[in-house]
Amino acid sequence: MAQIQFEVVAECPQTRARAGLLHTPHGTIETPVFMPVGTQATVKGLSARDLADDLGVRILLANTYHLFVRPGPELIRGMGGLHRFMSWPNAILTDSGGYQVFSLSGLRKIDDRGVVFQSHLNGDLHTFTPESTVDAQLAYGSDIMMVLDECPEYPVSREYARQSTDRTVRWAGQAFGHYRQRLEQTSGFMLPGPGVPQASLMGALFPIVQGSMFADLRRACASALLELEADGYAIGGLSVGEPRPLSLAMVEATEDILPRNRPRYAMGVGMPAELPEYVARGVDMMDCVLPTRNARNGCLFTSEGRVIIKQARYKEDARPLDPACRCYTCSRYSRAYLRHLFLSGEILYAMLATRHNLQRYLDIMREIRHAIISEQYPEYLRSVRSTPVEAGGS
Amino acid sequence: MAQIQFEVVAECPQTRARAGLLHTPHGTIETPVFMPVGTQATVKGLSARDLADDLGVRILLANTYHLFVRPGPELIRGMGGLHRFMSWPNAILTDSGGYQVFSLSGLRKIDDRGVVFQSHLNGDLHTFTPESTVDAQLAYGSDIMMVLDECPEYPVSREYARQSTDRTVRWAGQAFGHYRQRLEQTSGFMLPGPGVPQASLMGALFPIVQGSMFADLRRACASALLELEADGYAIGGLSVGEPRPLSLAMVEATEDILPRNRPRYAMGVGMPAELPEYVARGVDMMDCVLPTRNARNGCLFTSEGRVIIKQARYKEDARPLDPACRCYTCSRYSRAYLRHLFLSGEILYAMLATRHNLQRYLDIMREIRHAIISEQYPEYLRSVRSTPVEAGGS
Repeated sequence: MAQIQFEVVAECPQTRARAGLLHTPHGTIETPVFMPVGTQATVKGLSARDLADDLGVRILLANTYHLFVRPGPELIRGMGGLHRFMSWPNAILTDSGGYQVFSLSGLRKIDDRGVVFQSHLNGDLHTFTPESTVDAQLAYGSDIMMVLDECPEYPVSREYARQSTDRTVRWAGQAFGHYRQRLEQTSGFMLPGPGVPQASLMGALFPIVQGSMFADLRRACASALLELEADGYAIGGLSVGEPRPLSLAMVEATEDILPRNRPRYAMGVGMPAELPEYVARGVDMMDCVLPTRNARNGCLFTSEGRVIIKQARYKEDARPLDPACRCYTCSRYSRAYLRHLFLSGEILYAMLATRHNLQRYLDIMREIRHAIISEQYPEYLRSVRSTPVEAGGS
Repeated sequence: MAQIQFEVVAECPQTRARAGLLHTPHGTIETPVFMPVGTQATVKGLSARDLADDLGVRILLANTYHLFVRPGPELIRGMGGLHRFMSWPNAILTDSGGYQVFSLSGLRKIDDRGVVFQSHLNGDLHTFTPESTVDAQLAYGSDIMMVLDECPEYPVSREYARQSTDRTVRWAGQAFGHYRQRLEQTSGFMLPGPGVPQASLMGALFPIVQGSMFADLRRACASALLELEADGYAIGGLSVGEPRPLSLAMVEATEDILPRNRPRYAMGVGMPAELPEYVARGVDMMDCVLPTRNARNGCLFTSEGRVIIKQARYKEDARPLDPACRCYTCSRYSRAYLRHLFLSGEILYAMLATRHNLQRYLDIMREIRHAIISEQYPEYLRSVRSTPVEAGGS
């Protein structure tokens, strides 16, 4: 029994883009979808209501590593799971924590059993294994979970990439073995209340295609992962410093291997102009800290180009940030006010800027989906390629 | 012609408490009222919508000094005034900036003409005179403005207090002279659009009773200020380090001098348990950074007492912060989640905590007003004195 269901509702005849519906235990999501990042059980600067009601977010991402070191999976389980803890009514995807172990932890030691690492908060030693990261994500109650993988830096030697990819494939097998055991343990039990079998509320588990920037390793990896018959497949190891054409080539490399009737998730991408490119290569799901982090740093994405809000040119600019945008920020506030808040270090700046940048990303995704369904995707792609969505003046 | 109108709608027969309606160019305010502080043209952590629609705030305070040094009165005037700049539909009261000059500015030199001070941001020298602070507040378009005053520290000698109070009275006279001149200059002119005489949109100006902790000086000051026939009177120089009974005694000292048909504003007070005490002494308006600043620092006010959210006792506490509170924070989030956000330094913590603390203050003010109108104020006062609103366990 699949834990999530994916329906393809429209396909572009020229590109690999498709529009779909992803049914999860916490609602149905229109794809292609961009998932805002809620690292520590909150998207920085927005409440659950801002996200769900105002922005219409149907799925967000939380980081297994961050929640593992604080407040910890057992606390979250005790609070009724991550949805209840953060008061989030819609779907949640969690990563495996592998990426943060490699990027944040001062000390880490990887072997075939897993990875031992030191918390970046207090230096405590922890171990992630393929099994333990599944259990952590089960404690969170994620709708979509990721297997533990190794995300190599860029560049690495072909030999290192081969060994690392082999390990990622082995770990995926172990994670799935453990996950299926957990599924069996819980099936047959009934939840108190609505009488839904608990197993039907367990999230899906996605393996992750790795292989650094070697197309043949990525193809071999994807082929090996097919045997897991997963509900969906993630593509990892992108945006680690490689040139952007290479990221796109690596996604292309496995597009024809990954099953067309399963969602594909490109992890950690991308810039506004890149979103349509990934979709054109068969990607259904994306996440990135860019819209939220850049917002806080003063970089705002508009339909007319990037706005660096601290610039003196906006000092007395009474116009909304993006006159074409319908978000709360653009409907109520001027560039001059946003600049004042930014220079003053005000919390409201982060709130308004984050809200706008996410609206912009979600609007791009709506445009993309609409173009696919209305059979205009090739035209849409040509149009955004000639006027990149994040370039232009203001 | 008065710039604001004040109606007393109920008076307590035993205390000096009264309930009223304060009609301003930006709406009518039920009094007694607590005004949240929006120092830099924003209440930290809340949007205009959060404040007006969710919390029902009808008037907030902004700081003349802070807005003077950044972004400056001329920029705000150019942006259509402070209401439009910060997208605030309701009333705004601004202080004169005197208090911040004395508390924030590294260098300052006071003489009878005014005060020269150094910006705490960049060291630039500025001068505040009784006339210039009126002009700054006119540029903001405040509904209620304050005259420049000197707010002495505590304690000061009687001789210093006398001289300082004399200066405050002289400055008030100069400020009113200048203000009335501005009123005459603008009357007769019509605003573009709705055709309302511009003078009717000019804010009211309140003089400020000073006198340090000397009751006779305060009485002399209040009597002298009466000649200005102001639309309302502020009581300054409180909460500068004196014992709380002394603050209350200083308010009592001038209660019978200040006209009963004008609003009285006690500046910079107070703690939750103090609000009913000031009201019992004839105060109609209060403001304080406590609910907002304490929220950000982890101190939350509830109907059951103070909650210091970082304490380990709240680690797995699934209860709302205040089960009796109807605010967004209490209706959606647990203490455990708030503690997690606080310890993680998350923006959402400040947003949710500020929202709750302001709701608590506004709820106390609603209770107070209801008690006065329903002729229960003495009983209410006895009740809150025996269970102070910010004490108790949780």
